Amino acid sequence: MKITNKEELSRTSRRKDALEILEEGLKAANPKSSVKEALRNLKDELNKARRIVVIGFGKASIKMAEGCEEELRDKIYDGAIIAPKGIEDKKLKIIKVFEGTHPIPSEVNVESAKKLISVCSNLTSEDLVICLISGGGSSLLTFPANDISLEEKKLTTDVLLKSGADIREINTIRKHISKVKGGQLLNFLKPAKVVSLILSDVVGDPIEYIASGPTSPDSSTFKDALSIIKKYNLVNKLPKSVVERIEKGVRGEILETPKPGDEIFNDVKNIIVSNNMKSLVAMEKKASSLGYSTIILTSYAQGESREVGKFLCAVIKQISSYDIPIKKPACVILGGETTVTVKGNGKGGRNQELVLSVVLNCKDVKNFVFASIGSDGIDGYTDAAGAIADNFSLEDAVNSGLKPEEFLENNDSYNFFKQTRDLIFTGPTGTNVNDFTVALIF
Amino acid sequence: MKITNKEELSRTSRRKDALEILEEGLKAANPKSSVKEALRNLKDELNKARRIVVIGFGKASIKMAEGCEEELRDKIYDGAIIAPKGIEDKKLKIIKVFEGTHPIPSEVNVESAKKLISVCSNLTSEDLVICLISGGGSSLLTFPANDISLEEKKLTTDVLLKSGADIREINTIRKHISKVKGGQLLNFLKPAKVVSLILSDVVGDPIEYIASGPTSPDSSTFKDALSIIKKYNLVNKLPKSVVERIEKGVRGEILETPKPGDEIFNDVKNIIVSNNMKSLVAMEKKASSLGYSTIILTSYAQGESREVGKFLCAVIKQISSYDIPIKKPACVILGGETTVTVKGNGKGGRNQELVLSVVLNCKDVKNFVFASIGSDGIDGYTDAAGAIADNFSLEDAVNSGLKPEEFLENNDSYNFFKQTRDLIFTGPTGTNVNDFTVALIF
Repeated sequence: MKITNKEELSRTSRRKDALEILEEGLKAANPKSSVKEALRNLKDELNKARRIVVIGFGKASIKMAEGCEEELRDKIYDGAIIAPKGIEDKKLKIIKVFEGTHPIPSEVNVESAKKLISVCSNLTSEDLVICLISGGGSSLLTFPANDISLEEKKLTTDVLLKSGADIREINTIRKHISKVKGGQLLNFLKPAKVVSLILSDVVGDPIEYIASGPTSPDSSTFKDALSIIKKYNLVNKLPKSVVERIEKGVRGEILETPKPGDEIFNDVKNIIVSNNMKSLVAMEKKASSLGYSTIILTSYAQGESREVGKFLCAVIKQISSYDIPIKKPACVILGGETTVTVKGNGKGGRNQELVLSVVLNCKDVKNFVFASIGSDGIDGYTDAAGAIADNFSLEDAVNSGLKPEEFLENNDSYNFFKQTRDLIFTGPTGTNVNDFTVALIF
Repeated sequence: MKITNKEELSRTSRRKDALEILEEGLKAANPKSSVKEALRNLKDELNKARRIVVIGFGKASIKMAEGCEEELRDKIYDGAIIAPKGIEDKKLKIIKVFEGTHPIPSEVNVESAKKLISVCSNLTSEDLVICLISGGGSSLLTFPANDISLEEKKLTTDVLLKSGADIREINTIRKHISKVKGGQLLNFLKPAKVVSLILSDVVGDPIEYIASGPTSPDSSTFKDALSIIKKYNLVNKLPKSVVERIEKGVRGEILETPKPGDEIFNDVKNIIVSNNMKSLVAMEKKASSLGYSTIILTSYAQGESREVGKFLCAVIKQISSYDIPIKKPACVILGGETTVTVKGNGKGGRNQELVLSVVLNCKDVKNFVFASIGSDGIDGYTDAAGAIADNFSLEDAVNSGLKPEEFLENNDSYNFFKQTRDLIFTGPTGTNVNDFTVALIF
């Protein structure tokens, strides 16, 4: 098809809108500004503190620490964070940076954990620990219980992943063979006051699961852990030391992880400083200012990417035909994390595959733009954050001799959008609050 | 878990709400009342007509014809409908009932088509034909072009279904080897005025696809038909007579199907008297009167049932946690038709599988009811219309020793809900406007 100048213009301007809306989502998820904003709401706690110690772990910990130093300047007494190996930082002045491997922890992680904890020794109840938590924190802050070696801990994770146990069951066991997970980090921080500033990379923001909830009450018990071991017949598969420790715990010979309501949580605050929903709300505000009527469908998006794409087409069609549930020009916003069951050998990511599915399923819809990105800027094993497409994309592709069905079949969304020049690149954003998806219908 | 009386009561009352809302959807899709309502809006046309002839074909044609007789009484001059074999009717007084086989047409269908057409002979431009169209009409009204035998027509459909051609491509060819499909029925009705009252069983209501659009302009051509034959390499697979006819058509030796804007469509009205959206609107009204804030997500729902279930859980969670996009108590309404890719050997239907997926995926959500039915009252190859579940369902099932994951894996949703006593039975409803789905979050 031939696009007149005018159509081309409108096409470009709508695409620009979609990208600007996504950009607002990224801005709202910025680790540094999110931390600074949160600290401004904590004046009371900060002013009362005799000394302020900053600790942190996770993929965003450097940026979050920078936010602390900028906001608090010389009020910080001491600090240490654990960041992924290889990330250099020259901006931090007070807070020390230790390294850890990710996603598989190694001995260096344990050493870093010990160093981080030593920064918190000799604290009093008049001191305040600011704990910066972000995705990846669970492996970066690794500190197995005394009776478990790192190798045994790693083997345990391995066995559990292959057992069919779900992620909650896996975490229940991990929390009970760790010295820091499941609220136990507090044992090293007390009697200081603690404020955890959390960048949520888990859909729904369950604080006990983000970085394994080191400062959060743990709702699971040694008894639960043992039930899971029995449920999946793991008594002889897990390291002996792990099974023995959990059996001891059941007999009351080892202290449980801190539970909701426990005294240790007095003067502990867990604050989500950034999450998917915060970004979606910022995106909605932007879309509204651009003249769109808006709806946030969900921040819990899940399911097979191509099927979610099909369903979103059904919503796009409804708005296109009926102005229901919202009027055109309309902006549908959602977030979460879809999944791709890889069957082909192509290159792609869940966001790119979602967009490709929409391209294929919305072929009868006029006037839409659809875009989706991973907020960390890395969609699947690609250098793209996601992709953008509109109602011309399918025709353009077919005219260029591309067969979109075959690219989808082969999980090759990256190479499809590479050729249509519809990939979105942001580079690593330093944050992760899951995915952002936007559909404009006009 | 133990349910107190109070909880049990609230559980029952919410379930009752959901069922009442679905019932409103069925009421709005009632073929008889829909036809009567539409006729009341056609007073002008009816009063002007010298003679009124009623014809019809489809699974709902008897009920639709009853509506005509009740509303028009002795104003009907003559009439004939083609209904699925075996359905008896004793109420119709003027309109004759002929039979046809469904979904595979046979010689009796062709005979019935001829009889139906003979009722329309000798009409003048002062006469009015009311044409009642519903799902199944395409096979019930079978009348192959002169140069094609019924066997060749059936073989053609068979070859096309196995070729990989999509339903639009298949219909393009079918329309061009028929005497009545794709607007061509009008050749037998003219010069009379024509009003088609259409019960839409196709998502999105494209009138040219409902019962193959016998009174609708056809946007496809002989040339398109030939391209499809070549695209799928069918020249040697299709009956010779079919390929020859289409080649003749391309050369202009056979009249094309009527096209949009053709004179034959003067004084022809195609009116959708009932469709999925009409029912969803009625359901919304009912939900609203019961005190729920409401949203119609889409009437175009599509995708693999279990994946749509996952995504709908994401919407349910969003409302449960954030009161977004609508406030609790909330009613989410949608319609369309999801699909099940059968892998197991269980018994079920797309609606039952959708509900089972929601049961499994919404395990952390408190206070919801979810129900889904096929508006024809027949979900898959079962005697149930669908199923209903709530946040207690999963726990109840597990406590009874049922493993919902295994039932889902085996596409055995019917036997799961049979044991939890959550199947919804309506019996055949005599209508079909696709599926209705309702989620209450409170």
